[in-house]
Amino acid sequence: MDEPSLAARIRVVLVGTQHPGNIGSAARAMKTMGLSRLALVAPERYPHADADALAAGAGDVLAAATLHADLAAAVADCTLVLGCTARSRRVPLPEHGPREAAAMALDEAAGGGEVALVFGRERTGLENDELQLCHAAVHIPANPDYSSLNLAAAVQVLAWELRSAMLGRAPAAQVEPRDPPASHAQLEGLFAQLAETLDAIDFHKGRAPESAMRKLRRLFLRSRLDAREVRLLRGVLADAQRMARLAGGGEHP
Amino acid sequence: MDEPSLAARIRVVLVGTQHPGNIGSAARAMKTMGLSRLALVAPERYPHADADALAAGAGDVLAAATLHADLAAAVADCTLVLGCTARSRRVPLPEHGPREAAAMALDEAAGGGEVALVFGRERTGLENDELQLCHAAVHIPANPDYSSLNLAAAVQVLAWELRSAMLGRAPAAQVEPRDPPASHAQLEGLFAQLAETLDAIDFHKGRAPESAMRKLRRLFLRSRLDAREVRLLRGVLADAQRMARLAGGGEHP
Repeated sequence: MDEPSLAARIRVVLVGTQHPGNIGSAARAMKTMGLSRLALVAPERYPHADADALAAGAGDVLAAATLHADLAAAVADCTLVLGCTARSRRVPLPEHGPREAAAMALDEAAGGGEVALVFGRERTGLENDELQLCHAAVHIPANPDYSSLNLAAAVQVLAWELRSAMLGRAPAAQVEPRDPPASHAQLEGLFAQLAETLDAIDFHKGRAPESAMRKLRRLFLRSRLDAREVRLLRGVLADAQRMARLAGGGEHP
Repeated sequence: MDEPSLAARIRVVLVGTQHPGNIGSAARAMKTMGLSRLALVAPERYPHADADALAAGAGDVLAAATLHADLAAAVADCTLVLGCTARSRRVPLPEHGPREAAAMALDEAAGGGEVALVFGRERTGLENDELQLCHAAVHIPANPDYSSLNLAAAVQVLAWELRSAMLGRAPAAQVEPRDPPASHAQLEGLFAQLAETLDAIDFHKGRAPESAMRKLRRLFLRSRLDAREVRLLRGVLADAQRMARLAGGGEHP
């Protein structure tokens, strides 16, 4: 797959951006590196003259940007969601550097997947429930004494690594044929049914269900399930649910 | 030589910068990547409140910046001078990408040399007589349809490549601690219980069980489960088996 068609499968998602100028600068950073798909999740002020001004010649990227109420909506069709984070995170996820993340993103795009690179709020980054939607975290190993990259600077580093990797790719890198990867929505459907099943088989036994679900989500997100595997697992869950219903009938006739 | 002492031999030189805000943003980009030596050649407006504002927490880099009347003065003690340029140059110089340039700079610093990374004016770049002072040119292979990187963005890309190369030379890359991976025996125990559970919940419904088990094994092997995750999954399976027993009791009392 050639370079533009790979780039077309990779979107940048900015979540809760506070300063509209940063949206413009991010659009410019993207376009210089050949990326054009921008998704905005609940920006604080947008549209805004500062965004237009700082986009400079990347006004077309801004004009084509999509707006979403929450991150789940922005990544619903994505098969790989990478969340950029500062190091001290409370949600444990596999963590990659920018170069490794760029390679993952391109592999995914080359295999027909849809990739999101997600950047959080200027001050506070991504929230825990947003990180839960990510398959992996990307961390820019900045100076530990001053790791405060500007939002557009972080976008620039990731976009550069993507471009560098695209340019470095042999024209026809053979990617192992794979079943279509599961979309975000398919995975969330699986997780919802898993949560119901755990309840039905009385797995929690009074404990808070969050901890187990968090661990199971992490495991299955890391596994990069394909759509067929999601169907297989949901089939297993459906039978477990059926048994639980029968058992409920058996216990309380 | 360790990372700070390598960084101490590398300076960023901004020539004829027009917008003082870009000087501040460049200082910030440098500091996030562990660079601290900034030299300013005939900036149009400096000092300036915009520079201070955009430097954010990198005010120390600005405060320590040296001011020079021309590029020759700023690089007088340098043993390697790399000039960042757009592609169409009129002075033929060996040209390198950012990664190659970063490796050259570190080699030079590690050998005891002094390195300058030189960035020209926002609109017009470096002049011919300035390029004549450079040992080589650095070119960021941007989108040919829109190659207009902001000055601070170009500094960010080069500074990131330097940092990445420095960290790559570090003796031991830090690997995130992880729970101990599951042993072969633990995984086989999980798969055996999974097979039993599929039987118990009547998942196969007359089909040969091998196909589903093969797919599930592949999925879980790929996930590189740790021992704790194996225990969690086996707990879920145990409850599903318990429900199946209760259901069996309900069906055939």
